[in-house]
Amino acid sequence: MIGVDAGATSTRIAVHTLDGTRVGYARAGAGNPTAHGLDKAVAAVREALSAALAGHDGGQVVASLAGVAGHVPELTRELAKVWADHGVAEGPRCEGDLLIGYVAGSAEPDGALLLSGTGAAAARITGFRLDAVADALGWLLADAGSGFWIGRAAAMAVVDAFDRGLPVTALDDPADRLVPLVGRDFLGAERPDTPRAVASRVVRLAQAAPMRLATLAALVSRAAAAGDPMAVTIVEDAADRLAATLRRVHVSGPVVLAGSVLTSEGPVRAAVTARLPGVPVSTARDAAGAAAWLAARPLLAEDEAKALHGVFTGLGP
Amino acid sequence: MIGVDAGATSTRIAVHTLDGTRVGYARAGAGNPTAHGLDKAVAAVREALSAALAGHDGGQVVASLAGVAGHVPELTRELAKVWADHGVAEGPRCEGDLLIGYVAGSAEPDGALLLSGTGAAAARITGFRLDAVADALGWLLADAGSGFWIGRAAAMAVVDAFDRGLPVTALDDPADRLVPLVGRDFLGAERPDTPRAVASRVVRLAQAAPMRLATLAALVSRAAAAGDPMAVTIVEDAADRLAATLRRVHVSGPVVLAGSVLTSEGPVRAAVTARLPGVPVSTARDAAGAAAWLAARPLLAEDEAKALHGVFTGLGP
Repeated sequence: MIGVDAGATSTRIAVHTLDGTRVGYARAGAGNPTAHGLDKAVAAVREALSAALAGHDGGQVVASLAGVAGHVPELTRELAKVWADHGVAEGPRCEGDLLIGYVAGSAEPDGALLLSGTGAAAARITGFRLDAVADALGWLLADAGSGFWIGRAAAMAVVDAFDRGLPVTALDDPADRLVPLVGRDFLGAERPDTPRAVASRVVRLAQAAPMRLATLAALVSRAAAAGDPMAVTIVEDAADRLAATLRRVHVSGPVVLAGSVLTSEGPVRAAVTARLPGVPVSTARDAAGAAAWLAARPLLAEDEAKALHGVFTGLGP
Repeated sequence: MIGVDAGATSTRIAVHTLDGTRVGYARAGAGNPTAHGLDKAVAAVREALSAALAGHDGGQVVASLAGVAGHVPELTRELAKVWADHGVAEGPRCEGDLLIGYVAGSAEPDGALLLSGTGAAAARITGFRLDAVADALGWLLADAGSGFWIGRAAAMAVVDAFDRGLPVTALDDPADRLVPLVGRDFLGAERPDTPRAVASRVVRLAQAAPMRLATLAALVSRAAAAGDPMAVTIVEDAADRLAATLRRVHVSGPVVLAGSVLTSEGPVRAAVTARLPGVPVSTARDAAGAAAWLAARPLLAEDEAKALHGVFTGLGP
């Protein structure tokens, strides 16, 4: 059984026997063919497959499945060639990464995924098929409640506070407040002369590397956990937006939380969970293992498949 | 008298006699040395100066003043060379474009500017000097209430409406509603198959050219004037933000409204004006003429200068 999790930042491949035992695992660079080009994505998968299959006979592989962010039609054919080069008769079935994210947290055929990482999305899953998607529309106009969205809100609040004249010394508040946490993340030991110079400097640094804003989400969580009102407001807004996105697709069944913002314990996860009373909520675990489990499922009895789900997905990297 | 308005999109130069008569006017490309580089900015000013001074004796120029977006220290020296090449003994004094924007709407030494064009800013003017600035901090994290901010809010609302399942046929609503106005601006005659495909397509087009979002502000005004509730909300939010930015700097005296969002009659201008009860509000007119007036002011008696303000600034291009 080969499971592939070809994501926007890395590719992970897990090799399992039919009873769930993990016999190989490897990671390589980004495997998103839309964002990084087909050739680069295929090369990353090839590298990970060679490492994960090392010492195993490819001819023994009976099923493979790849969860891919940004699927392109040519990918299935290209991956079949890579599999053939490793002595595996049949190439992997390709599925969206949102389905695999769901399966990484649930063995139920019907339910929903709620993801908040750099981006944000919700997906309805019906019979282990991706049935509907909400959001996942990018940071410029959407991805409401994502890490980027939370981090941008925090940077805006900090810039606004200094533009309104908050003293530069606020950067050195020893408490876990949003302003010093975010301000020091940008400025380090640098201390501009005036509040307005602080605002301008943070803006210039953010403009130079906008994706950096997503990393601020962890600081928002830390400040919110310490009771900072500005951070608490951002967290509550994010949870409202994520819950609204989920409501667009969720009909019944469990909700799987995925993405760094929702899989880590903290205020955002707590605020989202509080908005889902009576809904069974679980957390996405290993996605490569989940892909291997989904490949194995048709070969197992239903009860057996359910029983082994935790073995496949709980092994981690 | 030479007045220069060296802006982020174009450079305009006006040549006036001391009684306000305009004897030359020309425009050239962008003259912002920070955004476009010193060489390009100086070249644009040189081109405009040659055209505006054509047929005049540079030796007769007694004073010059340049309003410059994004001043850099070397600029004064470089412009002095350009002036010398045109036979003008003394190069222009350089001032910020926010001061010139204010002077384009007021002959009072103390007051404030509120600007909403592509960006947004407020400035306090004291004795015809730039005393304090609020916002002007860029579209990624600030410029609250700017054309970009308004257009982005509109695009977000439209993307969100389609992601929530608004039928594709809503694009063809003949009324001045926000959704069809903005949707058709992006898609033209193109009609994707599903609401979600509409949302994705608008997102992709906006990501390809983010600055295009600023041009949507005019459509928001049109929809708000026709009573579209989504557009009215965006306009009210923008006016709240602009009024808050102004309050950070405005102490006393008139408020000059500048920038395409505030100089054109319409819902944003009306909503902002409604938030300034009892404050004398005027509108920025010709900025190159305003720069020429500010250059002429020390050479005129105070009453005379006030009386001629409208002549200098009201002539337009």
